[in-house]
Amino acid sequence: MDAVRWQGNTLYLLDQTKLPVTEEWLAYTDYRKVAHAITTMVVRGAPAIGVSAAYAYCLAALEGADLDEAKAVLAASRPTAVNLFWALDRMARKAAACGGDPAALVEEAVAIHREDVAMCKAMGAHGAQVVPDHARILTHCNAGALATGGYGTALGVIRAAHEQGKVDMVYADETRPLLQGARLTAYELVADHIPTTLIADNMAASLMAKGQIDMVVVGCDRMAANGDFANKIGTYSVAVNAHFHGVPFYTALPCSTIDLSLADGSGIPIEQRAKDEVRTLGGVQTAPAQVEVYNPSFDVTPHSLLTGIITEKGVIYPPFRENLARLFG
Amino acid sequence: MDAVRWQGNTLYLLDQTKLPVTEEWLAYTDYRKVAHAITTMVVRGAPAIGVSAAYAYCLAALEGADLDEAKAVLAASRPTAVNLFWALDRMARKAAACGGDPAALVEEAVAIHREDVAMCKAMGAHGAQVVPDHARILTHCNAGALATGGYGTALGVIRAAHEQGKVDMVYADETRPLLQGARLTAYELVADHIPTTLIADNMAASLMAKGQIDMVVVGCDRMAANGDFANKIGTYSVAVNAHFHGVPFYTALPCSTIDLSLADGSGIPIEQRAKDEVRTLGGVQTAPAQVEVYNPSFDVTPHSLLTGIITEKGVIYPPFRENLARLFG
Repeated sequence: MDAVRWQGNTLYLLDQTKLPVTEEWLAYTDYRKVAHAITTMVVRGAPAIGVSAAYAYCLAALEGADLDEAKAVLAASRPTAVNLFWALDRMARKAAACGGDPAALVEEAVAIHREDVAMCKAMGAHGAQVVPDHARILTHCNAGALATGGYGTALGVIRAAHEQGKVDMVYADETRPLLQGARLTAYELVADHIPTTLIADNMAASLMAKGQIDMVVVGCDRMAANGDFANKIGTYSVAVNAHFHGVPFYTALPCSTIDLSLADGSGIPIEQRAKDEVRTLGGVQTAPAQVEVYNPSFDVTPHSLLTGIITEKGVIYPPFRENLARLFG
Repeated sequence: MDAVRWQGNTLYLLDQTKLPVTEEWLAYTDYRKVAHAITTMVVRGAPAIGVSAAYAYCLAALEGADLDEAKAVLAASRPTAVNLFWALDRMARKAAACGGDPAALVEEAVAIHREDVAMCKAMGAHGAQVVPDHARILTHCNAGALATGGYGTALGVIRAAHEQGKVDMVYADETRPLLQGARLTAYELVADHIPTTLIADNMAASLMAKGQIDMVVVGCDRMAANGDFANKIGTYSVAVNAHFHGVPFYTALPCSTIDLSLADGSGIPIEQRAKDEVRTLGGVQTAPAQVEVYNPSFDVTPHSLLTGIITEKGVIYPPFRENLARLFG
C-alpha cells in the first residue's frame, strides 16, 4: 500500500480525506496545489509530507518557478512535522549543487522516497524485536504506509512483528477529530489481513486496566534533542495511561524526524486547526454551531513517558539526550 | 431545561438522539415503547432513565397491563444504571400498597421526578463549595438537566458554581461514540450562557499538562459500596489523567445511584453496544465496514482516583466505604 507516486513528471496523491469509502488518486503538476493538499491533509503523516514536498519542489523546477519561493510556499503548508523542512532543505542543497536541473532534482526526490521506505523496513526489523509473542498492540492515529513513502513507521513495526507471527491483535484508536485511526489505520491493517479492533480514543485506558494491551507504538511528527516528541493529539493521553498501567510505550521514527535544534518539546510549534473539525463530522453537525472549540492538531509527550525510540538505526533507550546525540555521531 | 414531562396521562420525552440540530418531543402512552426509547437512548442518563421508567410503570397501570411483566420489560431496557431498578422497585412497592391504583402510582412517579430535581439542586449547593474561584472545569459526557429530572448532577454543580460567579470555563469532552458532550452538554451550557469550550476526548490530557484544568466533575451510572463507580466510557481515562496531573476529580450523584449490594466495581455489569456506533457517525461511514469494534458503554473508575463524591446529603471524602455506609445510616 502507498499514497504517494511519481510518474511522467506528475505527482499522484491518494486522497486520504476520502478514505476508506472512496479510493481516489489526484494528479498534481502545480507545486502550489501540492502545498494546498498538505494543508488540507489530502496527504498527511510526517514522512509522507516530506516525500510529497520533495516531489512538489521538482514540479516547481519543471515549470521554471523561483525555487526559493516554491520552498517558502511549501514550508508554510503545515508547521509541526519537521520532515517537511528537512526534505525541502535537502532539495535546496541539491538544487544549488546541480544548478536547478529538473532531472537531477527528480532523482533526488525519488532517492528521498526510496530511502524513506527502506528506513521504514529497517525500523520494522528493529522494532519487531521489542514486540512480545502474542502481542496485543495499541496504536494511535496513522503512522502507516499511508503516512510515509510506504510500509509505515509504527505500522511498519506492527507489519514486521506480524510477519513473524507475534501479533494477536492491534487496537486502533479512531483518533478524533479527523479519524485517521478509523479511516486509515483500520483500512491499511484490514487490507493486510492483520487482526484489528477499532476503538474510540477514550476506550484505551479501560483495555489497559483489563490487562489487554501489551505495548503501545505510535509515530512522531517532531522529536526534540531530549526525546520529547510531538505526535497526533491524544498521543499524550495514551502515554499517561500506559505509564499508569505499566504498559511499554514506544514511538517509531526516521532520524529525519529528530530536530536537534530544539532542546526539549516546549519549542515545538503546535498547529491549531479549524473549529468545525470538532463541531461536525463528514458534513454532519454534531454540536451547537456557536460553541467554542479547542482543536490542537498535536500534543507533546515528554521523554519520561517513553520506554524506547525505534529508529532505522536501532532502538534507543534512556538516557535519551545522550543516546540520541550519539546516533548523530 | 428538561427532557422528561408528564401531562394528561402521557409521557413526553425530548428525543436526545436528534439534539442539538432538532428539538423534537415524542409522546408515549405505551410502556413498551418507553423501554425501547431507553434502549435506543431517546432518553439517557441514570436519573432520567429512573424517572422515565417510573412514568412508564404508570402507563402500564393505566392500560391495565400486568405490572410485574411491565417491570421486567422496563428493567431489561439497559443494564448499568442502577436508578432504573431503584425507581422500578419503589413503584412496585407503591403498587403493592395502593393495589395498583393508577392515580396513586402517578403521584409516586411525580414525587420521584420532583425529588430528583430537588436532589440535583442540593448536589449543586454542596458541590459548588468545592469549586475554586475562576474555575476551569472539565466534564465528560452529559450529566445535566437532560440526564436527570432537571438541573443535572455534574452540570448541577457547574450551574450552582456559575450562579456564584466561580466558573471561568467549562471544557466539555465530546464523548465518543455517541457525542453526548458535543450534542447535549454543549447544547445545555450554551443555552444557559455558561462559557463552554468543546474538545475531543483525547485533548483533555494536554489541557491538564498546560495547567488549564482546575477540577473535573462527572456523573455516575452506578457506584459500589467502596466508591468504585461506572460512568460513560472514557471517564476512567480522564480520572487517570487527573490523578497524574494532580487535578481534583469528583463525581456527583444522588444516593439512589449507590448500590450497596456490590462490594466493589468489579460486579457492575457493563453494556456492550453496537459496532456501528464506532464505525459510523450520523449515517456517515468512518471506518472499513468489516473492521472489528470494541464498544463498551461504560467503564469503571476505582475509588482510589476519586477526590470526593458529591451527593444531595453532602460531599463524601475517603475512606469512602465507611463514609458511604454512614450516609445510609
